[in-house]
Amino acid sequence: MATVVGNELKHIKTLLTKKGRKAHRQFVAEGVRVLEEAIRHGARPEVVYCADSMLSERGGEVAQSFALAGVPVKRLSARQEKGIADAATSQGILAVFASPEGTPAELCRPSIRKILLCENIADPGNLGTLIRSAAAFDFPLVCLSGACAEPYSPKVVRSTAGAIFAVKVAVADTDEIHALIRGRSMTLIAADGTGESDPPELADMVNTGTSVLAIGSEAEGLSGDWLHAADLVVRLEHEPAVESLNAAIAGSILMKRIYDLTHEGTS
Amino acid sequence: MATVVGNELKHIKTLLTKKGRKAHRQFVAEGVRVLEEAIRHGARPEVVYCADSMLSERGGEVAQSFALAGVPVKRLSARQEKGIADAATSQGILAVFASPEGTPAELCRPSIRKILLCENIADPGNLGTLIRSAAAFDFPLVCLSGACAEPYSPKVVRSTAGAIFAVKVAVADTDEIHALIRGRSMTLIAADGTGESDPPELADMVNTGTSVLAIGSEAEGLSGDWLHAADLVVRLEHEPAVESLNAAIAGSILMKRIYDLTHEGTS
Repeated sequence: MATVVGNELKHIKTLLTKKGRKAHRQFVAEGVRVLEEAIRHGARPEVVYCADSMLSERGGEVAQSFALAGVPVKRLSARQEKGIADAATSQGILAVFASPEGTPAELCRPSIRKILLCENIADPGNLGTLIRSAAAFDFPLVCLSGACAEPYSPKVVRSTAGAIFAVKVAVADTDEIHALIRGRSMTLIAADGTGESDPPELADMVNTGTSVLAIGSEAEGLSGDWLHAADLVVRLEHEPAVESLNAAIAGSILMKRIYDLTHEGTS
Repeated sequence: MATVVGNELKHIKTLLTKKGRKAHRQFVAEGVRVLEEAIRHGARPEVVYCADSMLSERGGEVAQSFALAGVPVKRLSARQEKGIADAATSQGILAVFASPEGTPAELCRPSIRKILLCENIADPGNLGTLIRSAAAFDFPLVCLSGACAEPYSPKVVRSTAGAIFAVKVAVADTDEIHALIRGRSMTLIAADGTGESDPPELADMVNTGTSVLAIGSEAEGLSGDWLHAADLVVRLEHEPAVESLNAAIAGSILMKRIYDLTHEGTS
């Protein structure tokens, strides 16, 4: 394995900033589990960096898989690795990937039946968790509108637990997403406290054509842009003991509900 | 309003540590929304601290409500407040509460029909979110077993969005919780990947007597202690694209499912 010099370390550190990720169109994914998922979903990093002394057996296997696939695997000292790792408990392995890019229309293959639309989900943990649930419940495309957290920031990537490699993520403005929905006659389902709880028409809707589920921020909810354009507004029934649910929880419960409605009789 | 001296500041800072909270049996809750929820659920702080220059109108109303209820409200300078606030964006108001205490048996009123049991939920954000969902879906008692995050730490309190004041939380050892379940003939439902997806007997179970829903950590799942004692093991169906769901998501989806099963025909 090649060792790493100062300039390369500096480059990795740059990728831990939003500006650096934007300039280089690359991002960093850390940790054994996240990189195992990258392998599982066929995501190929540009470079892998390992600190041998910190690496578990599982971590060593991940490095070897990448090496066998022809990815350059370079060696860091434990001290170098700790200097660049973002997570509090580094596992001695990280990799640099090219940031996938594309408009919603480019990323939306005709076979996609369910899309998650996140508006103003600013908390990286919530966004990462929503991406993870999207992968779990068969929403292969996630569109981000408004002031969302940046999808390739270390915190978001970590919160997806590797699901960032299982779905497509499109950062887009409202008009682009509206154009996609109208252009392909998709159904827009908005999650909002003003809607109906478990409306009977939901099952038909999600089993016909492509559906877009829109989730807003906890503090503000969905903007009028999405609420007014919605074909259906759905509310999650809960006790009045709490004012609202966490946005990632509400979105995931609705994705699971739609997943069950589209898989009934198939399991 | 009285102003605050150094010793008092030092005491508040002590409560931001686990050791301090344990020694003094007190905790700190910060921010307008969390304290509005405290008011709504009748939780009475021992002291409230405000930095007037940082306080929004809503924050001022919260301080006034406490003052009218006879709670001492003391003034901090913005600098003092910033020195002790845990959240990145302080809202100029925090309050000290006595930590509620009690065994699961003491806290479990006979009217309680649903209990959430968390084992080894170490991430404060996940634990706080589970407590928030427990309040939303009518699980008025949350029992913590094993290596859970500390329920009155600032991060957990913040993640509950004030729901910490809406439910009872019992930190207990496995034996105490088993004794409660056996002693009162409760049904134990375990969430685990080895279980059955949406088992038909779930509806009858949760509508008869008191049910305990047990959730384990993402990495390890539930321990044999709970899995072997379970009356029913439930799995959440999802795509193989992800290995597992976030623990707070899995727990919340199951709480919502049980909530719906116990409220069918009543909404």
